[in-house]
Amino acid sequence: MKKSLGPKTLIYPTPVLIVGSYNADGTANIMTAAWGGVASSKPASVAVSIRSATATHGNILQRKAFTISIPCESQAMVADYAGLVSGREHNKMAELGLTPVPSDQVDAPYAAEFPLVLECRLAAVHELGMHTQFIGEVVDVKADYGIVTEGNHVDVTLLRPIVYAMGAQAYFGLGHQLGKAFEMGKGAVE
Amino acid sequence: MKKSLGPKTLIYPTPVLIVGSYNADGTANIMTAAWGGVASSKPASVAVSIRSATATHGNILQRKAFTISIPCESQAMVADYAGLVSGREHNKMAELGLTPVPSDQVDAPYAAEFPLVLECRLAAVHELGMHTQFIGEVVDVKADYGIVTEGNHVDVTLLRPIVYAMGAQAYFGLGHQLGKAFEMGKGAVE
Repeated sequence: MKKSLGPKTLIYPTPVLIVGSYNADGTANIMTAAWGGVASSKPASVAVSIRSATATHGNILQRKAFTISIPCESQAMVADYAGLVSGREHNKMAELGLTPVPSDQVDAPYAAEFPLVLECRLAAVHELGMHTQFIGEVVDVKADYGIVTEGNHVDVTLLRPIVYAMGAQAYFGLGHQLGKAFEMGKGAVE
Repeated sequence: MKKSLGPKTLIYPTPVLIVGSYNADGTANIMTAAWGGVASSKPASVAVSIRSATATHGNILQRKAFTISIPCESQAMVADYAGLVSGREHNKMAELGLTPVPSDQVDAPYAAEFPLVLECRLAAVHELGMHTQFIGEVVDVKADYGIVTEGNHVDVTLLRPIVYAMGAQAYFGLGHQLGKAFEMGKGAVE
Protein backbone atom coordinates (compact mmCIF):
# COMPACT_ATOMS: atom_id res chain seq x y z
CA MET A 1 0.00 0.00 0.00
CA LYS A 2 1.44 3.31 -1.07
CA LYS A 3 0.80 6.90 -0.12
CA SER A 4 -0.14 9.48 -2.78
CA LEU A 5 2.16 12.51 -2.58
CA GLY A 6 0.86 14.53 -5.53
CA PRO A 7 2.90 15.69 -8.54
CA LYS A 8 6.55 16.01 -7.47
CA THR A 9 9.88 15.54 -9.23
CA LEU A 10 11.16 12.87 -6.87
CA ILE A 11 14.02 11.38 -8.86
CA TYR A 12 16.83 9.98 -6.66
CA PRO A 13 19.72 10.50 -6.97
CA THR A 14 20.19 13.79 -8.79
CA PRO A 15 23.63 15.12 -9.70
CA VAL A 16 25.31 18.39 -8.73
CA LEU A 17 26.23 20.12 -11.98
CA ILE A 18 28.27 23.31 -12.22
CA VAL A 19 27.25 25.14 -15.39
CA GLY A 20 29.88 27.47 -16.82
CA SER A 21 29.05 30.28 -19.24
CA TYR A 22 30.27 33.70 -20.32
CA ASN A 23 28.40 36.82 -19.26
CA ALA A 24 27.78 39.54 -21.87
CA ASP A 25 30.86 41.40 -20.58
CA GLY A 26 33.05 38.34 -21.07
CA THR A 27 33.47 37.44 -17.41
CA ALA A 28 33.15 33.80 -16.50
CA ASN A 29 30.02 32.74 -14.60
CA ILE A 30 29.05 29.53 -12.85
CA MET A 31 25.80 28.28 -11.39
CA THR A 32 24.79 25.02 -9.75
CA ALA A 33 21.98 22.88 -11.14
CA ALA A 34 20.62 19.49 -10.10
CA TRP A 35 17.99 19.11 -12.82
CA GLY A 36 19.85 17.27 -15.55
CA GLY A 37 21.56 14.12 -16.71
CA VAL A 38 22.58 12.16 -19.76
CA ALA A 39 20.30 12.73 -22.76
CA SER A 40 21.74 10.51 -25.53
CA SER A 41 24.76 8.27 -26.04
CA LYS A 42 25.34 9.27 -29.67
CA PRO A 43 25.96 12.05 -30.31
CA ALA A 44 27.12 12.22 -26.68
CA SER A 45 24.55 14.60 -25.19
CA VAL A 46 23.58 15.89 -21.79
CA ALA A 47 20.59 17.84 -20.51
CA VAL A 48 20.47 20.61 -17.93
CA SER A 49 17.36 22.57 -16.95
CA ILE A 50 17.69 26.22 -15.97
CA ARG A 51 15.20 28.96 -15.09
CA SER A 52 14.99 31.90 -17.48
CA ALA A 53 15.58 34.34 -14.61
CA THR A 54 19.21 33.24 -14.27
CA ALA A 55 22.21 34.91 -15.88
CA THR A 56 23.31 31.51 -17.17
CA HIS A 57 20.11 31.11 -19.22
CA GLY A 58 20.77 34.19 -21.32
CA ASN A 59 24.47 33.44 -21.52
CA ILE A 60 23.91 30.00 -23.03
CA LEU A 61 21.46 31.33 -25.62
CA GLN A 62 23.94 34.06 -26.55
CA ARG A 63 27.07 31.94 -26.92
CA LYS A 64 25.39 28.64 -27.88
CA ALA A 65 27.73 26.86 -25.52
CA PHE A 66 28.27 25.89 -21.89
CA THR A 67 30.38 23.62 -19.73
CA ILE A 68 29.24 21.21 -17.07
CA SER A 69 31.68 20.44 -14.29
CA ILE A 70 31.29 17.70 -11.72
CA PRO A 71 32.49 18.84 -8.30
CA CYS A 72 33.92 16.42 -5.76
CA GLU A 73 32.85 15.86 -2.14
CA SER A 74 35.24 18.42 -0.68
CA GLN A 75 33.77 21.06 -3.01
CA ALA A 76 30.19 20.73 -1.73
CA MET A 77 30.32 24.09 0.05
CA VAL A 78 31.62 25.81 -3.08
CA ALA A 79 28.97 24.10 -5.23
CA ASP A 80 26.23 25.14 -2.84
CA TYR A 81 27.36 28.78 -2.86
CA ALA A 82 27.26 28.84 -6.66
CA GLY A 83 23.59 27.89 -6.43
CA LEU A 84 22.73 30.44 -3.74
CA VAL A 85 23.62 33.75 -5.36
CA SER A 86 23.12 35.22 -8.83
CA GLY A 87 25.84 35.79 -11.38
CA ARG A 88 24.18 39.14 -12.07
CA GLU A 89 25.32 40.50 -8.70
CA HIS A 90 28.27 38.28 -7.88
CA ASN A 91 31.47 37.25 -9.61
CA LYS A 92 31.19 33.81 -8.08
CA MET A 93 34.42 32.48 -9.56
CA ALA A 94 36.41 35.34 -8.03
CA GLU A 95 34.60 35.20 -4.69
CA LEU A 96 35.25 31.47 -4.41
CA GLY A 97 38.86 31.76 -5.48
CA LEU A 98 38.29 29.64 -8.58
CA THR A 99 40.41 29.90 -11.72
CA PRO A 100 38.49 30.51 -14.96
CA VAL A 101 39.80 28.52 -17.92
CA PRO A 102 38.49 29.07 -21.45
CA SER A 103 37.34 25.86 -23.10
CA ASP A 104 39.50 25.10 -26.14
CA GLN A 105 36.43 23.56 -27.83
CA VAL A 106 33.41 25.76 -27.13
CA ASP A 107 32.69 29.39 -26.27
CA ALA A 108 32.38 28.82 -22.52
CA PRO A 109 34.62 28.76 -19.45
CA TYR A 110 35.12 26.32 -16.59
CA ALA A 111 36.87 26.43 -13.25
CA ALA A 112 40.22 24.63 -13.18
CA GLU A 113 39.53 23.34 -9.67
CA PHE A 114 36.65 20.99 -10.55
CA PRO A 115 37.99 17.52 -11.43
CA LEU A 116 35.78 16.72 -14.43
CA VAL A 117 34.44 19.01 -17.17
CA LEU A 118 32.12 18.40 -20.12
CA GLU A 119 32.47 21.00 -22.88
CA CYS A 120 29.12 21.37 -24.61
CA ARG A 121 27.85 22.90 -27.80
CA LEU A 122 24.19 23.95 -27.49
CA ALA A 123 22.26 21.41 -29.57
CA ALA A 124 18.62 22.03 -28.61
CA VAL A 125 16.43 24.19 -26.38
CA HIS A 126 13.20 22.84 -24.89
CA GLU A 127 10.78 25.10 -23.05
CA LEU A 128 9.27 22.98 -20.27
CA GLY A 129 7.44 25.49 -18.10
CA MET A 130 9.41 26.89 -15.16
CA HIS A 131 12.63 25.49 -16.59
CA THR A 132 14.25 25.62 -20.00
CA GLN A 133 16.01 22.37 -20.84
CA PHE A 134 19.28 22.87 -22.68
CA ILE A 135 20.65 19.89 -24.60
CA GLY A 136 24.41 20.06 -24.94
CA GLU A 137 26.38 17.94 -27.34
CA VAL A 138 29.55 16.99 -25.51
CA VAL A 139 32.45 18.00 -27.73
CA ASP A 140 35.16 16.97 -25.29
CA VAL A 141 35.66 15.94 -21.68
CA LYS A 142 38.56 17.22 -19.61
CA ALA A 143 39.49 15.29 -16.47
CA ASP A 144 42.13 15.64 -13.81
CA TYR A 145 44.89 13.08 -14.42
CA GLY A 146 44.39 11.78 -10.88
CA ILE A 147 40.91 10.41 -11.57
CA VAL A 148 41.66 8.80 -14.95
CA THR A 149 42.63 5.13 -15.01
CA GLU A 150 43.82 2.81 -17.76
CA GLY A 151 41.77 2.95 -20.96
CA ASN A 152 40.90 6.60 -20.27
CA HIS A 153 38.16 5.65 -17.81
CA VAL A 154 37.11 7.97 -15.00
CA ASP A 155 37.29 6.16 -11.65
CA VAL A 156 34.22 7.29 -9.75
CA THR A 157 35.73 6.25 -6.41
CA LEU A 158 38.59 8.68 -7.06
CA LEU A 159 36.28 11.38 -8.44
CA ARG A 160 34.00 11.23 -5.35
CA PRO A 161 31.03 13.07 -6.91
CA ILE A 162 28.30 14.70 -4.85
CA VAL A 163 24.78 13.26 -4.71
CA TYR A 164 21.94 15.73 -4.18
CA ALA A 165 18.75 14.52 -2.53
CA MET A 166 15.48 16.40 -2.63
CA GLY A 167 13.30 16.39 0.41
CA ALA A 168 16.35 16.17 2.66
CA GLN A 169 17.73 19.09 0.61
CA ALA A 170 21.11 17.66 1.41
CA TYR A 171 24.32 16.54 -0.27
CA PHE A 172 25.65 13.04 0.18
CA GLY A 173 28.79 11.19 -0.81
CA LEU A 174 29.01 7.93 -2.69
CA GLY A 175 28.40 4.81 -0.61
CA HIS A 176 29.74 1.29 -0.99
CA GLN A 177 29.58 -0.65 -4.24
CA LEU A 178 26.47 -2.82 -4.52
CA GLY A 179 27.53 -4.73 -7.60
CA LYS A 180 28.47 -4.61 -11.25
CA ALA A 181 25.99 -3.39 -13.86
CA PHE A 182 25.14 -5.71 -16.77
CA GLU A 183 26.47 -8.50 -14.57
CA MET A 184 24.78 -8.89 -11.17
CA GLY A 185 21.35 -9.12 -12.80
CA LYS A 186 22.28 -12.45 -14.36
CA GLY A 187 21.69 -14.03 -10.99
CA ALA A 188 18.21 -12.53 -10.50
CA VAL A 189 16.28 -15.20 -12.39
CA GLU A 190 16.75 -19.00 -12.13
CA MET B 1 46.35 20.27 -16.07
CA LYS B 2 43.60 18.07 -17.41
CA LYS B 3 43.49 15.14 -19.78
CA SER B 4 41.25 15.22 -22.86
CA LEU B 5 39.00 12.16 -23.00
CA GLY B 6 36.94 12.96 -26.10
CA PRO B 7 33.15 13.30 -26.30
CA LYS B 8 31.62 11.19 -23.50
CA THR B 9 28.50 11.48 -21.36
CA LEU B 10 30.35 11.50 -18.05
CA ILE B 11 27.68 12.83 -15.70
CA TYR B 12 28.07 11.54 -12.11
CA PRO B 13 25.92 10.36 -10.42
CA THR B 14 23.21 8.97 -12.68
CA PRO B 15 20.02 7.43 -11.28
CA VAL B 16 18.63 3.93 -11.77
CA LEU B 17 15.13 4.37 -13.21
CA ILE B 18 12.66 1.53 -13.74
CA VAL B 19 10.36 2.52 -16.60
CA GLY B 20 6.94 0.85 -16.58
CA SER B 21 4.74 0.59 -19.67
CA TYR B 22 2.08 -1.61 -21.23
CA ASN B 23 2.93 -3.87 -24.16
CA ALA B 24 0.49 -4.01 -27.09
CA ASP B 25 -1.07 -7.17 -25.60
CA GLY B 26 -1.70 -5.40 -22.29
CA THR B 27 1.01 -7.14 -20.26
CA ALA B 28 3.09 -4.97 -17.98
CA ASN B 29 6.70 -4.34 -18.99
CA ILE B 30 9.64 -2.78 -17.19
CA MET B 31 13.07 -1.69 -18.30
CA THR B 32 15.95 -0.02 -16.54
CA ALA B 33 17.37 3.31 -17.69
CA ALA B 34 20.07 5.55 -16.29
CA TRP B 35 19.82 8.37 -18.81
CA GLY B 36 17.34 10.74 -17.20
CA GLY B 37 16.54 13.13 -14.41
CA VAL B 38 14.38 16.06 -13.44
CA ALA B 39 13.38 18.25 -16.40
CA SER B 40 11.26 21.04 -14.88
CA SER B 41 9.82 21.96 -11.48
CA LYS B 42 6.51 23.28 -12.81
CA PRO B 43 4.74 21.44 -14.27
CA ALA B 44 6.61 18.71 -12.38
CA SER B 45 8.43 16.97 -15.23
CA VAL B 46 11.06 14.30 -15.64
CA ALA B 47 13.12 13.12 -18.60
CA VAL B 48 14.13 9.61 -19.56
CA SER B 49 16.05 8.64 -22.70
CA ILE B 50 15.34 5.31 -24.38
CA ARG B 51 16.55 3.65 -27.59
CA SER B 52 13.95 3.08 -30.31
CA ALA B 53 14.85 -0.63 -30.46
CA THR B 54 13.29 -1.26 -27.05
CA ALA B 55 9.75 -2.48 -26.42
CA THR B 56 9.30 0.37 -23.94
CA HIS B 57 9.88 2.99 -26.67
CA GLY B 58 6.90 1.85 -28.73
CA ASN B 59 4.78 1.27 -25.65
CA ILE B 60 5.20 4.85 -24.43
CA LEU B 61 4.35 6.30 -27.85
CA GLN B 62 1.25 4.08 -28.03
CA ARG B 63 -0.19 4.77 -24.56
CA LYS B 64 1.24 8.28 -24.06
CA ALA B 65 2.15 7.34 -20.53
CA PHE B 66 4.80 5.62 -18.40
CA THR B 67 5.83 5.21 -14.80
CA ILE B 68 9.26 5.69 -13.29
CA SER B 69 10.06 3.72 -10.17
CA ILE B 70 13.08 4.23 -7.97
CA PRO B 71 14.45 0.91 -6.71
CA CYS B 72 16.26 0.61 -3.38
CA GLU B 73 19.71 -0.85 -2.67
CA SER B 74 18.46 -4.37 -2.03
CA GLN B 75 16.77 -4.35 -5.46
CA ALA B 76 19.97 -3.69 -7.43
CA MET B 77 20.04 -7.23 -8.83
CA VAL B 78 16.41 -6.97 -9.94
CA ALA B 79 17.03 -3.55 -11.49
CA ASP B 80 20.06 -4.83 -13.36
CA TYR B 81 18.15 -7.80 -14.77
CA ALA B 82 15.42 -5.49 -16.09
CA GLY B 83 18.12 -3.71 -18.08
CA LEU B 84 19.72 -6.90 -19.42
CA VAL B 85 16.90 -8.59 -21.32
CA SER B 86 14.20 -7.35 -23.68
CA GLY B 87 10.51 -7.11 -22.87
CA ARG B 88 9.88 -8.50 -26.35
CA GLU B 89 11.16 -11.94 -25.29
CA HIS B 90 10.75 -11.84 -21.52
CA ASN B 91 7.91 -11.13 -19.12
CA LYS B 92 10.35 -9.50 -16.73
CA MET B 93 7.78 -8.72 -14.02
CA ALA B 94 6.73 -12.38 -13.87
CA GLU B 95 10.29 -13.70 -14.03
CA LEU B 96 11.36 -11.42 -11.19
CA GLY B 97 8.30 -12.20 -9.08
CA LEU B 98 7.13 -8.59 -9.20
CA THR B 99 3.49 -7.56 -8.80
CA PRO B 100 2.10 -5.36 -11.61
CA VAL B 101 -0.15 -2.56 -10.38
CA PRO B 102 -2.12 -0.36 -12.80
CA SER B 103 -1.54 3.33 -12.20
CA ASP B 104 -4.77 5.01 -11.14
CA GLN B 105 -3.64 8.17 -12.93
CA VAL B 106 -2.07 7.20 -16.26
CA ASP B 107 -2.24 4.29 -18.72
CA ALA B 108 0.86 2.52 -17.42
CA PRO B 109 1.76 -0.07 -14.77
CA TYR B 110 4.36 -0.24 -12.02
CA ALA B 111 5.70 -2.95 -9.75
CA ALA B 112 4.33 -2.84 -6.21
CA GLU B 113 7.72 -3.82 -4.80
CA PHE B 114 9.59 -0.63 -5.72
CA PRO B 115 9.32 1.93 -2.91
CA LEU B 116 8.75 5.09 -4.98
CA VAL B 117 6.79 5.56 -8.22
CA LEU B 118 6.26 8.60 -10.46
CA GLU B 119 3.18 8.33 -12.67
CA CYS B 120 3.83 10.24 -15.88
CA ARG B 121 1.77 11.54 -18.75
CA LEU B 122 3.84 11.81 -21.94
CA ALA B 123 4.35 15.54 -22.46
CA ALA B 124 7.02 15.75 -25.17
CA VAL B 125 9.23 13.57 -27.36
CA HIS B 126 12.70 14.72 -28.40
CA GLU B 127 14.73 12.78 -30.95
CA LEU B 128 18.36 13.10 -29.87
CA GLY B 129 20.20 10.59 -32.04
CA MET B 130 20.68 7.13 -30.55
CA HIS B 131 18.17 7.92 -27.80
CA THR B 132 14.68 9.38 -27.78
CA GLN B 133 14.11 11.63 -24.79
CA PHE B 134 10.64 11.28 -23.31
CA ILE B 135 9.43 14.13 -21.12
CA GLY B 136 6.86 12.96 -18.60
CA GLU B 137 4.64 15.28 -16.63
CA VAL B 138 4.39 13.77 -13.17
CA VAL B 139 0.69 13.46 -12.38
CA ASP B 140 1.17 11.78 -9.01
CA VAL B 141 3.84 10.13 -6.87
CA LYS B 142 3.16 6.97 -4.91
CA ALA B 143 5.52 6.11 -2.06
CA ASP B 144 5.74 3.32 0.49
CA TYR B 145 4.52 4.61 3.85
CA GLY B 146 7.81 3.54 5.43
CA ILE B 147 9.86 6.13 3.51
CA VAL B 148 7.49 9.09 3.97
CA THR B 149 8.11 11.43 6.89
CA GLU B 150 6.20 14.38 8.31
CA GLY B 151 5.05 16.92 5.73
CA ASN B 152 4.85 14.18 3.07
CA HIS B 153 8.60 14.27 2.45
CA VAL B 154 10.48 11.25 1.17
CA ASP B 155 13.40 10.44 3.47
CA VAL B 156 16.25 9.49 1.16
CA THR B 157 18.11 7.68 3.96
CA LEU B 158 15.09 5.39 4.32
CA LEU B 159 14.59 5.08 0.56
CA ARG B 160 18.25 4.05 -0.03
CA PRO B 161 18.27 4.69 -3.78
CA ILE B 162 20.86 3.18 -6.12
CA VAL B 163 23.56 5.30 -7.74
CA TYR B 164 24.84 4.17 -11.14
CA ALA B 165 28.34 5.10 -12.19
CA MET B 166 29.60 4.90 -15.74
CA GLY B 167 33.15 3.79 -16.35
CA ALA B 168 33.00 1.56 -13.29
CA GLN B 169 29.70 0.25 -14.72
CA ALA B 170 28.73 -0.36 -11.14
CA TYR B 171 25.96 0.40 -8.67
CA PHE B 172 26.65 2.19 -5.41
CA GLY B 173 24.68 3.04 -2.33
CA LEU B 174 24.27 6.46 -0.78
CA GLY B 175 27.19 7.61 1.36
CA HIS B 176 27.31 9.93 4.35
CA GLN B 177 25.69 13.36 4.40
CA LEU B 178 28.10 16.13 3.38
CA GLY B 179 25.87 19.03 4.35
CA LYS B 180 22.61 20.85 3.79
CA ALA B 181 21.81 22.42 0.43
CA PHE B 182 21.01 26.15 0.31
CA GLU B 183 22.75 26.35 3.67
CA MET B 184 26.34 25.11 3.76
CA GLY B 185 27.30 27.43 0.89
CA LYS B 186 26.72 30.46 3.11
CA GLY B 187 30.05 29.73 4.71
CA ALA B 188 32.00 29.53 1.44
CA VAL B 189 32.70 33.26 1.09
CA GLU B 190 33.90 35.60 3.82
